[in-house]
Amino acid sequence: MTQGVKIATIGGGSSYTPELMEGFIKRYDELPIREIWLVDIEAGKEKLEIVGAMAQRMWDASPYDVKIHMTLDREEALKDADFVTTQFRVGLLEARIKDERIPAYYGMLGQETNGAGGMFKAFRTVPIILEIVEDMKRLCPDAWLVNFANPSGMVTEAVVRYGKWDKVIGLCNVPVMATMVEPELLGRKPEELIYKFAGLNHFHWHKVTDNHGKDVTMDIVDKMYEGETGLPKNIHDIPFQRELLEQMKMIPCGYHRYYYLEEEMLEHALEEYNSPTGTRAQQVKQTEAELFELYKNPELDYKPEQLQQRGGAYYSDAACETIASIYSNKNTQLVVSTKNNGAVPDLPADCVVEVSAYIGGQGARNVAFGSLPTAERGWLQVMKAMELLTLEAAVTGDYNTALQAFTINPMVRSGKTAKRIMDELFIAHKKHLPNFKETIERLEKEGVEVQDEVAKSLREV
Amino acid sequence: MTQGVKIATIGGGSSYTPELMEGFIKRYDELPIREIWLVDIEAGKEKLEIVGAMAQRMWDASPYDVKIHMTLDREEALKDADFVTTQFRVGLLEARIKDERIPAYYGMLGQETNGAGGMFKAFRTVPIILEIVEDMKRLCPDAWLVNFANPSGMVTEAVVRYGKWDKVIGLCNVPVMATMVEPELLGRKPEELIYKFAGLNHFHWHKVTDNHGKDVTMDIVDKMYEGETGLPKNIHDIPFQRELLEQMKMIPCGYHRYYYLEEEMLEHALEEYNSPTGTRAQQVKQTEAELFELYKNPELDYKPEQLQQRGGAYYSDAACETIASIYSNKNTQLVVSTKNNGAVPDLPADCVVEVSAYIGGQGARNVAFGSLPTAERGWLQVMKAMELLTLEAAVTGDYNTALQAFTINPMVRSGKTAKRIMDELFIAHKKHLPNFKETIERLEKEGVEVQDEVAKSLREV
Amino acid sequence: MTQGVKIATIGGGSSYTPELMEGFIKRYDELPIREIWLVDIEAGKEKLEIVGAMAQRMWDASPYDVKIHMTLDREEALKDADFVTTQFRVGLLEARIKDERIPAYYGMLGQETNGAGGMFKAFRTVPIILEIVEDMKRLCPDAWLVNFANPSGMVTEAVVRYGKWDKVIGLCNVPVMATMVEPELLGRKPEELIYKFAGLNHFHWHKVTDNHGKDVTMDIVDKMYEGETGLPKNIHDIPFQRELLEQMKMIPCGYHRYYYLEEEMLEHALEEYNSPTGTRAQQVKQTEAELFELYKNPELDYKPEQLQQRGGAYYSDAACETIASIYSNKNTQLVVSTKNNGAVPDLPADCVVEVSAYIGGQGARNVAFGSLPTAERGWLQVMKAMELLTLEAAVTGDYNTALQAFTINPMVRSGKTAKRIMDELFIAHKKHLPNFKETIERLEKEGVEVQDEVAKSLREV
Amino acid sequence: MTQGVKIATIGGGSSYTPELMEGFIKRYDELPIREIWLVDIEAGKEKLEIVGAMAQRMWDASPYDVKIHMTLDREEALKDADFVTTQFRVGLLEARIKDERIPAYYGMLGQETNGAGGMFKAFRTVPIILEIVEDMKRLCPDAWLVNFANPSGMVTEAVVRYGKWDKVIGLCNVPVMATMVEPELLGRKPEELIYKFAGLNHFHWHKVTDNHGKDVTMDIVDKMYEGETGLPKNIHDIPFQRELLEQMKMIPCGYHRYYYLEEEMLEHALEEYNSPTGTRAQQVKQTEAELFELYKNPELDYKPEQLQQRGGAYYSDAACETIASIYSNKNTQLVVSTKNNGAVPDLPADCVVEVSAYIGGQGARNVAFGSLPTAERGWLQVMKAMELLTLEAAVTGDYNTALQAFTINPMVRSGKTAKRIMDELFIAHKKHLPNFKETIERLEKEGVEVQDEVAKSLREV
Repeated sequence: MTQGVKIATIGGGSSYTPELMEGFIKRYDELPIREIWLVDIEAGKEKLEIVGAMAQRMWDASPYDVKIHMTLDREEALKDADFVTTQFRVGLLEARIKDERIPAYYGMLGQETNGAGGMFKAFRTVPIILEIVEDMKRLCPDAWLVNFANPSGMVTEAVVRYGKWDKVIGLCNVPVMATMVEPELLGRKPEELIYKFAGLNHFHWHKVTDNHGKDVTMDIVDKMYEGETGLPKNIHDIPFQRELLEQMKMIPCGYHRYYYLEEEMLEHALEEYNSPTGTRAQQVKQTEAELFELYKNPELDYKPEQLQQRGGAYYSDAACETIASIYSNKNTQLVVSTKNNGAVPDLPADCVVEVSAYIGGQGARNVAFGSLPTAERGWLQVMKAMELLTLEAAVTGDYNTALQAFTINPMVRSGKTAKRIMDELFIAHKKHLPNFKETIERLEKEGVEVQDEVAKSLREV
Repeated sequence: MTQGVKIATIGGGSSYTPELMEGFIKRYDELPIREIWLVDIEAGKEKLEIVGAMAQRMWDASPYDVKIHMTLDREEALKDADFVTTQFRVGLLEARIKDERIPAYYGMLGQETNGAGGMFKAFRTVPIILEIVEDMKRLCPDAWLVNFANPSGMVTEAVVRYGKWDKVIGLCNVPVMATMVEPELLGRKPEELIYKFAGLNHFHWHKVTDNHGKDVTMDIVDKMYEGETGLPKNIHDIPFQRELLEQMKMIPCGYHRYYYLEEEMLEHALEEYNSPTGTRAQQVKQTEAELFELYKNPELDYKPEQLQQRGGAYYSDAACETIASIYSNKNTQLVVSTKNNGAVPDLPADCVVEVSAYIGGQGARNVAFGSLPTAERGWLQVMKAMELLTLEAAVTGDYNTALQAFTINPMVRSGKTAKRIMDELFIAHKKHLPNFKETIERLEKEGVEVQDEVAKSLREV
Repeated sequence: MTQGVKIATIGGGSSYTPELMEGFIKRYDELPIREIWLVDIEAGKEKLEIVGAMAQRMWDASPYDVKIHMTLDREEALKDADFVTTQFRVGLLEARIKDERIPAYYGMLGQETNGAGGMFKAFRTVPIILEIVEDMKRLCPDAWLVNFANPSGMVTEAVVRYGKWDKVIGLCNVPVMATMVEPELLGRKPEELIYKFAGLNHFHWHKVTDNHGKDVTMDIVDKMYEGETGLPKNIHDIPFQRELLEQMKMIPCGYHRYYYLEEEMLEHALEEYNSPTGTRAQQVKQTEAELFELYKNPELDYKPEQLQQRGGAYYSDAACETIASIYSNKNTQLVVSTKNNGAVPDLPADCVVEVSAYIGGQGARNVAFGSLPTAERGWLQVMKAMELLTLEAAVTGDYNTALQAFTINPMVRSGKTAKRIMDELFIAHKKHLPNFKETIERLEKEGVEVQDEVAKSLREV
Repeated sequence: MTQGVKIATIGGGSSYTPELMEGFIKRYDELPIREIWLVDIEAGKEKLEIVGAMAQRMWDASPYDVKIHMTLDREEALKDADFVTTQFRVGLLEARIKDERIPAYYGMLGQETNGAGGMFKAFRTVPIILEIVEDMKRLCPDAWLVNFANPSGMVTEAVVRYGKWDKVIGLCNVPVMATMVEPELLGRKPEELIYKFAGLNHFHWHKVTDNHGKDVTMDIVDKMYEGETGLPKNIHDIPFQRELLEQMKMIPCGYHRYYYLEEEMLEHALEEYNSPTGTRAQQVKQTEAELFELYKNPELDYKPEQLQQRGGAYYSDAACETIASIYSNKNTQLVVSTKNNGAVPDLPADCVVEVSAYIGGQGARNVAFGSLPTAERGWLQVMKAMELLTLEAAVTGDYNTALQAFTINPMVRSGKTAKRIMDELFIAHKKHLPNFKETIERLEKEGVEVQDEVAKSLREV
């Protein structure tokens, strides 16, 4: 890395890229980047060009001489890269719209990360990430992979378990936001609070002490019930049953609403589904279109305010911080998806968990959390089983394993409708599920068709 | 035991008692009983007298001289007993009707053993079984406790975990029926098949080989899809999704329908709820009334055919076999709830599981099953968490723990309605939930009232 | 098996074969054997012919028509076999003499099963047993392998772990003898006592209850200190420190003397080493020679008394009982080496342990023992680590792993002398350690030579 | 802590105290101490006064106004303390001399931390540390306990397991020295290397990467074999068998010589035993006497060079760093004894381990190490069993448990001599083993007497 760092960003045409650039620019002193390669696919070429030009303008406005390369050739980008970031979305937002609407048509939660939708997102993403890992073994065997393609935890687990690649860190903005909002709730400075997270991506809990070791978890809970709870924008914001939090003495993540308040979250999802603006993915699609309009402006050379409104804010910043921490051995405290190594003793030591960690030259050094209480232990174990089954199905293309994963998923009501939803999702995502070719041919022969009109009308991209 | 065995049966007024008597009579040679004490409570006195007289007639018609004692004094019955069987039902069928109808009113499954209803059955039963254990420590410290009060697995776990009493075996008729029906399906004799069960009560799987070690599990599955599946009468009989069975290569128990076919089971439950005959408990109440009419007949001195129609057939026979096997060190193979000891390595060694075991002088010698596949492991771990939380709530009376147990229960859709159902169940079972006194007073103050008219109209017995 | 059972016995020329024949003859009704193939190697041809002729005479004197085949062609013997028994000794007693004398020369215990010697016995035996398993996969894929080649536990683990063959049962006569002697000590009949064993081969403990479930373990211990302890003939018989047994409330196996009384056992081994009769293997060699003289007698058609004097009595009988129990699904209780499956929860579920099991058509159904107390847990874990390292070294031929195994072995005092002993053992067993070819060449170049004159004088057979 | 920090140091009369003072003085900016209470017992009064005066001089020579209190009243010292450090030695060096000489008399290693001697050190120390914890619960319930009384790991485990006190950190200078020496070996700056330690006190291994994540463990090993290995002064410095290190790809701690080179360490110990200067403790006693002579000098107001020669250098500095890190939430990386919480997944999550951790306001945040290889896992498990048995014996005073601990200890050759050594040690330490009163009375009646003349001649202090 003597002549500066080479970054390759897969899914470079994403609307998040400007946040990523901003993050790199402000950390240039500790992370002297030489060149950034933004990679995308043919279908994303136009967006790549818009956002790539915008990225170059941002660097040009900075004091640093960094070259943005735009390419459709992943190999060229990966060659000798020091860090690879992955933020691609197989099938783009169109695919997510299907993930959300097809279940909702039948009155069920799609939930694009851990629910029925999230499982298909994994089915689409896992084969690609494993291809990337194989490329990395050849082209940049010393590089770190920093993933924020969703479902981030499952994708990271795929990299470790099936890709046999340990130099990977999975990111999520949910814990970032908790650590930004909670000090404010208590009127404390961020550095005055100490966090301990444990769980899985979009399925973790945390405890907080102040810098004197005093547990302030329940003080934060008290404040949360007084007002603002600091959820990411993409989660419907209703209060948890306080009794549960009193019992667990931990703070669940926002996505836990899908498990602790299944009824309310379903109601909300169906409301959105039936509204003119549509499900979350449809709303995001609108926001994205607006963002790209902004990005086209040849005067714009900084990250626009509007990007913050998008659900994933801080994802990219977390990625920049992770990379800088590894590069400069900073020992920054972050919450990341990483090989467990015992940090969550209730799960196998070799699976991926999301935990507090110190990030440095070795990657993530996980903070050992200790055994969780009964309820959280049970939840974690069943969710990890769901993840592992989903990944196994993604890799083997086995329909029965996929059905098993669907059935065990706490967000899916098992039975004939769940199976129907799964079948329609297979049909809907045909292009991106090569491993399930035989299944999809069978379903087509059986005449399975997507029923939701919006989902049906979207072609696969 | 030199002068013959003393049996004490708590809940002696149950309609199952004649089956128990029949089982003891046919095993007299290996289990020389001297006296049987049928214990019941004041509210059950009339039934106790009817069934007790009937029981004495059965023995009088046998070649054996055994005395039936009927008593409301539990201590007298336990004094120097060799075996204690527990088949009591706190709150009788009236309580079960509430357990089923209150959730169904809100469109949710009550399920009297593992669902919302089953959890309240545990709340009612656990304090009583722990009292019995304390009595046994004083009055018959060498006796074995053979439990078939439901939820049988949780009750057995309470005895071991909170009662600190290891000489207990929990029984269930579900595996008994599997081992009776499956050989028939294959046209084999029972002794030609070898079973290996693992899991929890009403939540287990099994594999079968023939006597040459050939795995015939999937042959049985094939036959099950051709026709009769041998379910207990109390489970709605619809086929599992065959894909799941193909994947797991094991046979789930009938109650797994509540998890693998939640949608269909809920539909069926609501149908029954809305029908004139009512939920399962209401139907059983009718059957029981008819049975007691039969038992009143002073000519009847054998178990009537009609008892077989009742869901719990073979429960009592399993109890007799268990007792005879312990007494005569027979090493009979049964499937029982017992301390794990490693037989199911995916659960802690000190919790209670339901597994194949050889029953003899040491009680149950569990057959080590080995690790379960991913899906079953996940299910087991979350269900055991639900059981442990339920028991903790039952013992501590903590409302928040109860809510946590409700929330994690895969059969309960979490959220405001689930909480409402739980609150109504507390009100409905007030008399039998002394540990939750404060909670119930609070809920009464808040004006919580049972909404289902049938449940509301039933007084607590 | 319609036309009777085919048995293949590898190491058929062993002096134990007559016991094996006797065992088969007395079980013919439940195990209708058609033919027995005794296999040996060129070097054992003469013994094979003597013992094979003797075996045929034994069957001819019985009412049954069974043909004994003698062959040096293992494949012919394995073809379509129903059961394969392995009792071979790579390098014969000569090798064992080296295993015992080379360490003793340096004042260390050789101990031919778990000590320095036993590790080399594993190094020699593992490659052969894995060859046999590969042959079985081709020639008799439905057969059961019943191993009593020592070190029996490690050999069985090799079959499961590296051979990927689960239809194997490892045997040992040590637990057999305990269950024969202990009832006598208490003046009880064998069927009146119930055993629960857990541990590893030559490293297990057991508890005993009577048929009413009363723990009589300490009663047996009391009797053991009054007199006869029922050890196998090959273990020096001195009393355990009673305090240890009082603390553990279990009965250790005779070989535990090497761990609980290391000093005394070493003293005894060195005494033997320095005596004219020599170490145990030298004594056994003498006994064997005498046995073969007897076997040559063309009148002898029954197992001679003198065989009982040999240490391994009952080994072969246990093998016959195991085979008959599998064949007839008898559910006999035996103590066997088998895949753990959770029976000993303190060790991984997939390793091999030695435990009480019911033997039937499925092979061994292990009795779940539950967690062991602190001391026994620690011992087991370190010994299993030693076994796994030994096997890894045996398979990979890695010198450093072998040294690691030596170092962790509690019977080996680590340091320069241990390393020297190991090096000499490599030289001494050159012919039988093809996996360690490079190591041995290196050691030869370094001029390592065996120092013990007796060991040096023995050529490899 | 508004008016500055109060430190209480139990065993304040130790010769290490000046190092502790030096450490506090140089960290005053981040740890504003108000007062330090040095506590000792009557027998240590003179030393306390010498070292206390010296300590006050050191502070007086600094720019800070800190008051040293000397007291024999522990309660007064603990009252409202913010940090309690424990560095006491029950029975002083006299006791350690006995721990070393009594085993050596019989040709066995005494080893004062993990061997026979260390176990008796635990027997003496555990009751006192538990008394201190009880005092702390009353007098300073928010304080942190920083222990460096040996055997540091076992003492810390006692505090957590039996004292039920989690705010404790155990320290050792061994890892400190590794992290000081190893960068030098590679010609790197300390901040350029990243360490990952796992194991138990005096029984751990570590891996090292550079700040780019490159594993440099074996580079360090290469350098170690070229020359200086950076051992603590109290360990005989001979090279490990390089083959072992090649296999494990980790660096063992210096004390591992007792396990990997038992023979050589024993030889060395016996050499010292038979030399005029005597065992290590006798040498240390001489050094200490010289140190106290220096301390008496009223001009001396800084830590003298000679203290560095003493084996335990850096112990006290680690304590100061730990305290400052907790107080200022510094997230310093240290290696500490602390509740596992999963960091070493091969040991129970609730036991104490010695691992890399970030020290801050929450105490130690352990770095999850992941599962260890087979050999190290086995060693750890047997050593933790030895520790747990030792602690159980220390608390219960049960002789048989003590013998079990002795027997399982890999450094003790089991048998009659080991038992004799244990018995003599009981006699020798009579005054400090109140929990073993009955045992000692029995042994006295049996006439057990210490045989080593030096040990015999020392009275208990």
